[in-house]
Amino acid sequence: MCRFLAYTGAPLLLADLLYRPANSLIMQSYKARERAEPLNGDGFGVGWYVPEVDPGPCVQRTVMPAWSNRNLQSLAVKVRASCLFAHVRAASPGMSVIETNVHPFVYDRFMWMHNGAVANFERIKRPLRESLKDEFYNLIMGTTDSEHAFALFLNNLRVPFGEARGEDLRAALVETIALLNEWTRAAGIVEPSHYNFAVTDGHSIVVSRYSSAAGQPANSLHIARGLRFECLPDGVCDMHTVKTQEQAAAVIVSSERLTDDKDDWLDVPDNHTVTVTPDLNVQVEAINL
Amino acid sequence: MCRFLAYTGAPLLLADLLYRPANSLIMQSYKARERAEPLNGDGFGVGWYVPEVDPGPCVQRTVMPAWSNRNLQSLAVKVRASCLFAHVRAASPGMSVIETNVHPFVYDRFMWMHNGAVANFERIKRPLRESLKDEFYNLIMGTTDSEHAFALFLNNLRVPFGEARGEDLRAALVETIALLNEWTRAAGIVEPSHYNFAVTDGHSIVVSRYSSAAGQPANSLHIARGLRFECLPDGVCDMHTVKTQEQAAAVIVSSERLTDDKDDWLDVPDNHTVTVTPDLNVQVEAINL
Amino acid sequence: MCRFLAYTGAPLLLADLLYRPANSLIMQSYKARERAEPLNGDGFGVGWYVPEVDPGPCVQRTVMPAWSNRNLQSLAVKVRASCLFAHVRAASPGMSVIETNVHPFVYDRFMWMHNGAVANFERIKRPLRESLKDEFYNLIMGTTDSEHAFALFLNNLRVPFGEARGEDLRAALVETIALLNEWTRAAGIVEPSHYNFAVTDGHSIVVSRYSSAAGQPANSLHIARGLRFECLPDGVCDMHTVKTQEQAAAVIVSSERLTDDKDDWLDVPDNHTVTVTPDLNVQVEAINL
Amino acid sequence: MCRFLAYTGAPLLLADLLYRPANSLIMQSYKARERAEPLNGDGFGVGWYVPEVDPGPCVQRTVMPAWSNRNLQSLAVKVRASCLFAHVRAASPGMSVIETNVHPFVYDRFMWMHNGAVANFERIKRPLRESLKDEFYNLIMGTTDSEHAFALFLNNLRVPFGEARGEDLRAALVETIALLNEWTRAAGIVEPSHYNFAVTDGHSIVVSRYSSAAGQPANSLHIARGLRFECLPDGVCDMHTVKTQEQAAAVIVSSERLTDDKDDWLDVPDNHTVTVTPDLNVQVEAINL
Repeated sequence: MCRFLAYTGAPLLLADLLYRPANSLIMQSYKARERAEPLNGDGFGVGWYVPEVDPGPCVQRTVMPAWSNRNLQSLAVKVRASCLFAHVRAASPGMSVIETNVHPFVYDRFMWMHNGAVANFERIKRPLRESLKDEFYNLIMGTTDSEHAFALFLNNLRVPFGEARGEDLRAALVETIALLNEWTRAAGIVEPSHYNFAVTDGHSIVVSRYSSAAGQPANSLHIARGLRFECLPDGVCDMHTVKTQEQAAAVIVSSERLTDDKDDWLDVPDNHTVTVTPDLNVQVEAINL
Repeated sequence: MCRFLAYTGAPLLLADLLYRPANSLIMQSYKARERAEPLNGDGFGVGWYVPEVDPGPCVQRTVMPAWSNRNLQSLAVKVRASCLFAHVRAASPGMSVIETNVHPFVYDRFMWMHNGAVANFERIKRPLRESLKDEFYNLIMGTTDSEHAFALFLNNLRVPFGEARGEDLRAALVETIALLNEWTRAAGIVEPSHYNFAVTDGHSIVVSRYSSAAGQPANSLHIARGLRFECLPDGVCDMHTVKTQEQAAAVIVSSERLTDDKDDWLDVPDNHTVTVTPDLNVQVEAINL
Repeated sequence: MCRFLAYTGAPLLLADLLYRPANSLIMQSYKARERAEPLNGDGFGVGWYVPEVDPGPCVQRTVMPAWSNRNLQSLAVKVRASCLFAHVRAASPGMSVIETNVHPFVYDRFMWMHNGAVANFERIKRPLRESLKDEFYNLIMGTTDSEHAFALFLNNLRVPFGEARGEDLRAALVETIALLNEWTRAAGIVEPSHYNFAVTDGHSIVVSRYSSAAGQPANSLHIARGLRFECLPDGVCDMHTVKTQEQAAAVIVSSERLTDDKDDWLDVPDNHTVTVTPDLNVQVEAINL
Repeated sequence: MCRFLAYTGAPLLLADLLYRPANSLIMQSYKARERAEPLNGDGFGVGWYVPEVDPGPCVQRTVMPAWSNRNLQSLAVKVRASCLFAHVRAASPGMSVIETNVHPFVYDRFMWMHNGAVANFERIKRPLRESLKDEFYNLIMGTTDSEHAFALFLNNLRVPFGEARGEDLRAALVETIALLNEWTRAAGIVEPSHYNFAVTDGHSIVVSRYSSAAGQPANSLHIARGLRFECLPDGVCDMHTVKTQEQAAAVIVSSERLTDDKDDWLDVPDNHTVTVTPDLNVQVEAINL
């Protein structure tokens, strides 16, 4: 279990997402509101793109809790990003607190985050790994179900890395969920799995909200879309929302609402994906397996 | 703010204090019950004596949260101690999360822990430091009020280190509180300070419960004293309490009750000290300044 | 590349192996003498047995360099061990500096260390993993060739864990080397691999010195065996050697000579194993594959 | 003892200073060429300015060795800086390896680094601290002589922070050395002290090369000044030097030559300062006390 957020839009200071909102991601590292256990203290990661340098992301990850990290505090008030992923981790029981288990995971131009867990992951680890091409088999550096799901996503991507559109990312992500379902079913695992995955190539972002158990709710997921996201000197942050698709210049997809103004946030329905395209269009689609 | 415990008595596996009780110190690192903020995730320290080797303690400290520390998990199921201090830290705002700020602090044969804070510590730091002999001035390695109070305690100790009895430790600790009061008053600081201090030389233990504000309660502090403290295979831990002083073979002084059986635990009154002597006598005395 | 040592015999303070000898393991962490690159700064691990508590080892590992580790300094002057493994790591290129990659690796009552590398390990990782029983497949927490070799060793062990004798450990270790050779050959890997492995169950110790390339020397490995290993107050450490098998009460098997007195140390020949049995007999045998 | 570098000029990728040169700062973290002990493995820090956001620097510091730091590797290939400080630390004996002891030290818009040591620092610590205004007394978070010297520098600065010119920085730095000399003399310290200090406000840079012992050489210090510093795809880095002051667009002041081309590097004489002004003029002046 974890909390994450994805942002794309006009360049924004990291602090405006990570520190300044009333329910900022750093606040969620110890006082998360929308999950039973408020603590996400097993590491923190943030990644953003610097397209004028190269297509891969700059990623900073640590096993230290986010709330006291001075390096992150310094970066957050200096760096502006127009495409950002950030994640606070609550390690699943038995999972090591090591840097290679911290999200976002990175490969080439892609970043990947996960909130949730594959139930009884060890029982599907072998078939999952065996399905992977060597390239993706060998990129796995940690032990999380999340990173294995990322390798599977890359394995499922049918287009060259530089040519993927939002719909290609979505197809590979949905196929990832389908395969995980197939293997957990084959292994006789009945506990529900939760697959809130987020992936980006620096241009499009796809995020899923998914529970494998029909009746059970998936983990929370919200969207804010608007003209801009702004933190005022008085400490209040706000999304200047828009009615029409055309005007949007800022999109946040986030495990929790960052601000208290509920009108700014749209709930993603269970078992749906959110696709944000480079022109900041947002499409919410059902996952049909 | 923090949580701590001190144990002395028959050799006990560290896990029986740190992990196995229902409200173990590790549990208190993220779900503390007796303070408003349940999180104490800014480091962990444990120290114990190995008198057959030498009079100083073996101390292990880290800035990583206690709950995921594999080194501590391994030590805890192997090491038995007959005199132990352990502490989970919640850094006061502005205080660095660095190893030298983690309790217990050590000098020669002494260990020192603190739960609480000197209000506006920076305003009394200079007179405090200036009052210290060079030896204690130069042992300060971190920035906490807690470590400075330890240096002050050592400075106040009137007997050679190897000859201190419980009452000597108590006198120096009470003088420490008196001096802190004097300097905070002189600095015009009106916010209350909290001085739950614990000190040991491996033979005697003295712990204070103290609030500088007359009406305001001090931080919680409890004593369990008995024949032995035991964790059964069914996971329930229990102090086998005793009525008379003579029989005791285990004493715990702790910020929180470790077990659900409230009858096992005695509240220390506000502005009192607890002195545990080598024969496991426990004396509770008012702090009269 | 790394440096390690194993000790068994009369209880010895850790510092007498790790800090006090002229070429102690801590010294080898930054000034190793018997390898081209003197630096082994990518983590440190130490493990020892506490047989009066249970058959598994107490293990402390960290990614921090050994030379500045205050926790290790404190443990080393307090803990005595009669069976100890210790290791300073120099991460192979590309290998992550994460805690789960630090030696010794532990499973049940076993500890395992490695000095050397499987050449082009990624090319044999799949067949190696596929050969493992689920129990050992799932214990792998890091990415090193060393840990994978440990899983393979456990997979090769033909006797119940509690009943293994030195010769059983040796057989499984030699089979591990044989399988690694088989897979590297099958993968067409021509670069030499180096397999200085050390394993113990707390009773017997087996260490190999092995290079897969006929002409090329293996990594250094030495034995000191005697009445006792002692560090005098003047700072000089010495093995009081013995002529006959009967008298020995201390055996060190170590990547480097810990002391300057070369007479105390016996070179292990290339492609041989050293087996130390619980009665401190030492047998050096050729590895015939 | 440590190694550092300062850069100012056209925006340059961090990797071009930290990783790519033959004798890059990262290389100096374990194979320094111009000091007897090649290891500087006790932490790493880097800071740079983002003037379009605010006048203070972005600083990243860690106690982990520089050579294996993945966060630094990722930053270095994404971030361009036009004013940068970077430092690899070799902790003086007894000095803690804690984040607050890692250079560069920061306050307001200033960064400060030190290569060298105040001999017997503890013996002048009290008078040094007592001389400080409260503001600078309270900014000290670690235990190094280096950070104390920084506080002293700030205390010596006679102009408002935003108005300091190169000559103001130089005056305060030289006064810092003078005061350290005065106190060490008063304390009867005869061992030589070494004061290679570097300070910047993001506009001007001042670096000293200084030994308090007349006959003894100071620690190494070099300047490269030119049109630009460039690392070519073939891995060779080079300063395109210039003859006249007017053309310069890149200045490096560094403990060691970063490249093998000695013609690119000018030795700073002992007991001199280097002042680099915002227009990239470089002035080398004797320190006359």
